Amino acid sequence: MIEAKVDIVEAKEKKAKPDPENLSFGKIFTDHMFTMEYTREKGWFNPKIEPYAPIELDPAAMIFHYSQSVFEGLKAYLDPEGHIQLFRPQENFKRMNRSNQRLSIPLINEELVLDYLKQLLTLEKDWIPSADGTSLYIRPFIFATESSLSVAPAHSYKFIIILSPVGSYYPEGIHPVSIQIEHDYTRAVRGGTGTAKTGGNYSAGYIAQAKAAEQGHAQVMWLDGVEKEYIEEVGSMNVFFKINGQVVTPELNDSILAGVTRKSIIELLHDWNIDVVERKISVSEIHEAYKEGTLEEAFGAGTAAVISPIGELSWGEEVMIINGRQTGDLTKSLYTTLTGVQTGKLPDPYGWTVKIKV
Amino acid sequence: MIEAKVDIVEAKEKKAKPDPENLSFGKIFTDHMFTMEYTREKGWFNPKIEPYAPIELDPAAMIFHYSQSVFEGLKAYLDPEGHIQLFRPQENFKRMNRSNQRLSIPLINEELVLDYLKQLLTLEKDWIPSADGTSLYIRPFIFATESSLSVAPAHSYKFIIILSPVGSYYPEGIHPVSIQIEHDYTRAVRGGTGTAKTGGNYSAGYIAQAKAAEQGHAQVMWLDGVEKEYIEEVGSMNVFFKINGQVVTPELNDSILAGVTRKSIIELLHDWNIDVVERKISVSEIHEAYKEGTLEEAFGAGTAAVISPIGELSWGEEVMIINGRQTGDLTKSLYTTLTGVQTGKLPDPYGWTVKIKV
Ligand SMILES: Cc1ncc(COP(=O)(O)O)c(C=O)c1O
Ligand SMILES: Cc1ncc(COP(=O)(O)O)c(C=O)c1O
Repeated sequence: MIEAKVDIVEAKEKKAKPDPENLSFGKIFTDHMFTMEYTREKGWFNPKIEPYAPIELDPAAMIFHYSQSVFEGLKAYLDPEGHIQLFRPQENFKRMNRSNQRLSIPLINEELVLDYLKQLLTLEKDWIPSADGTSLYIRPFIFATESSLSVAPAHSYKFIIILSPVGSYYPEGIHPVSIQIEHDYTRAVRGGTGTAKTGGNYSAGYIAQAKAAEQGHAQVMWLDGVEKEYIEEVGSMNVFFKINGQVVTPELNDSILAGVTRKSIIELLHDWNIDVVERKISVSEIHEAYKEGTLEEAFGAGTAAVISPIGELSWGEEVMIINGRQTGDLTKSLYTTLTGVQTGKLPDPYGWTVKIKV
Repeated sequence: MIEAKVDIVEAKEKKAKPDPENLSFGKIFTDHMFTMEYTREKGWFNPKIEPYAPIELDPAAMIFHYSQSVFEGLKAYLDPEGHIQLFRPQENFKRMNRSNQRLSIPLINEELVLDYLKQLLTLEKDWIPSADGTSLYIRPFIFATESSLSVAPAHSYKFIIILSPVGSYYPEGIHPVSIQIEHDYTRAVRGGTGTAKTGGNYSAGYIAQAKAAEQGHAQVMWLDGVEKEYIEEVGSMNVFFKINGQVVTPELNDSILAGVTRKSIIELLHDWNIDVVERKISVSEIHEAYKEGTLEEAFGAGTAAVISPIGELSWGEEVMIINGRQTGDLTKSLYTTLTGVQTGKLPDPYGWTVKIKV
């Protein structure tokens, strides 16, 4: 491993580590962060690991006005030997560059940035929780810093990585949730920003999420913006169905975010010789399968929860109960295998994991 | 006028005023800004006029991650008697609340905020340029400040107003520009955030704008996201056409931003007894009118330029030259009247202007 050159400024005082039994999501951050800056003249420069601290920005900084930003989300685990382990981090930085391209943000050097991350993790190793289901959530993000109200790409940016120890998504064990199919609000449409991990896609969905929550549902299922008929995602996750023995998931188009978990599930299923197809899936088709009794399992897939089984799917007045509101067998196997490989408890025959030996 | 209570902290040192002949857009800011904060417990509190200065934010502040933000844009002018004059500012704060609603941001008290703005302008009066076409651009904005990576509405926000003296949009006089109709990229779709003035809508359009600029066009004309056939906006402006003596503009739907300039133009045309219709307008219809020789004028309308005549409209290989690339007579009258009323050089029979006598 070639170590990319980074200035390291160590925090003088270290924070107390949180109680591993009481971790929430993304509220507590470690002692250090990685930062780097961009200007037109210098490109990306000044890579630095420094104490976690507030950022100073001019009130005219473009991020406040035109939301030119992208982010990523991945996790670090401690494997049973105590080494740090990452899951397909190259995929996250590749996707970050695709997001950058869509948002007119300068590209990053993916290898270099992964190396910076490794150095940051090495320094923060003691922050990685080891209890079942816990991990160190990694949040790389880029935002426009130039002070200007011009509606145009900024000439300067900041890239930051912060780290947050997070608890199990399922403190009481994996369990199915209730999902509402959203007809009126739209997450993304062809030609829009749906394939990019950019802030605007997320705050835009809060209103629909609140509507679903009011009606007792955990999440929203998003339909395509054009026909309002094809299933795209669920909350901030990709989605899978098992119908009559076959696994189906919406094919990647110009509005679905290409998840790393989704990709890994498809590869696992191929390896297991289970039929899996990426194609358009309409709500009517799911409803038909439900009525015929062939809708066997359904789940969301993403870094935060890994796998989130769907127990109930509401579509207007229709309520579809899936697998008697129990986690399906295939859903369970995928969850066990994925989390096993991610945490190093199971072998990784796929070359997905990246170890940092410290 | 009841003066809402605001703490005022005056800047110790005042900046030098910029050369009024060389003003750009949104690069220079005045000595003071208005700020106010929101928490769940207190609501909006701590209204303050204070020296223009950087803001400190935690790297986990939600604005960096999920772009929960809204903004407004309006202008202050000096009228011929030297009084400060605003143009329909109530409309901007009304729209800001509509944007807040869509982005799950707590509503503001529109009257109170207008009063805060008036107090800020009174203090910054010397910053309002008086040369032809110049003004003091007003940028109110709200963003999520809570430190948390939860994909959910923030529990804390900041509301800020900054002021920037801006030059004439047309230093060489009003002149028509070339516009490209964009087929692939989408600005907004029904159920999305197009009717809200939120940051994500703007950075999402940079890539299409760059493509148009590469091909020698000034701006992009946006089509609807569903059928890619109906005209919605041009750049960050609403759009009008004069066809065979009748003025038409896209009707407000669930993806077009309701402009204050647009609204004022429609009201002016009614007052002038000129036929004006709000309805769906397809590209094919415009192209037909062009071929028949009845496409007489076209222009964009928004606060920044007020009116921006369209001289050329490109649609794939087709190039439509409008009014021999000259500013049309009606376009000119609207521009003269609107800017005249806005600056107080013409009487205001509509009650649109708000004067601050200092
Ligand atoms: C909108 C959206 N869809 C899907 C995913 C799943 O992607 P991944 O599996 O890479 O976490 C995410 C990210 O978590 C997301 O934000
Ligand atoms: C997308 C968009 N459309 C139209 C307008 C025009 O609105 P207004 O006339 O209120 O400035 C704006 C704002 O300037 C805008 O951002």
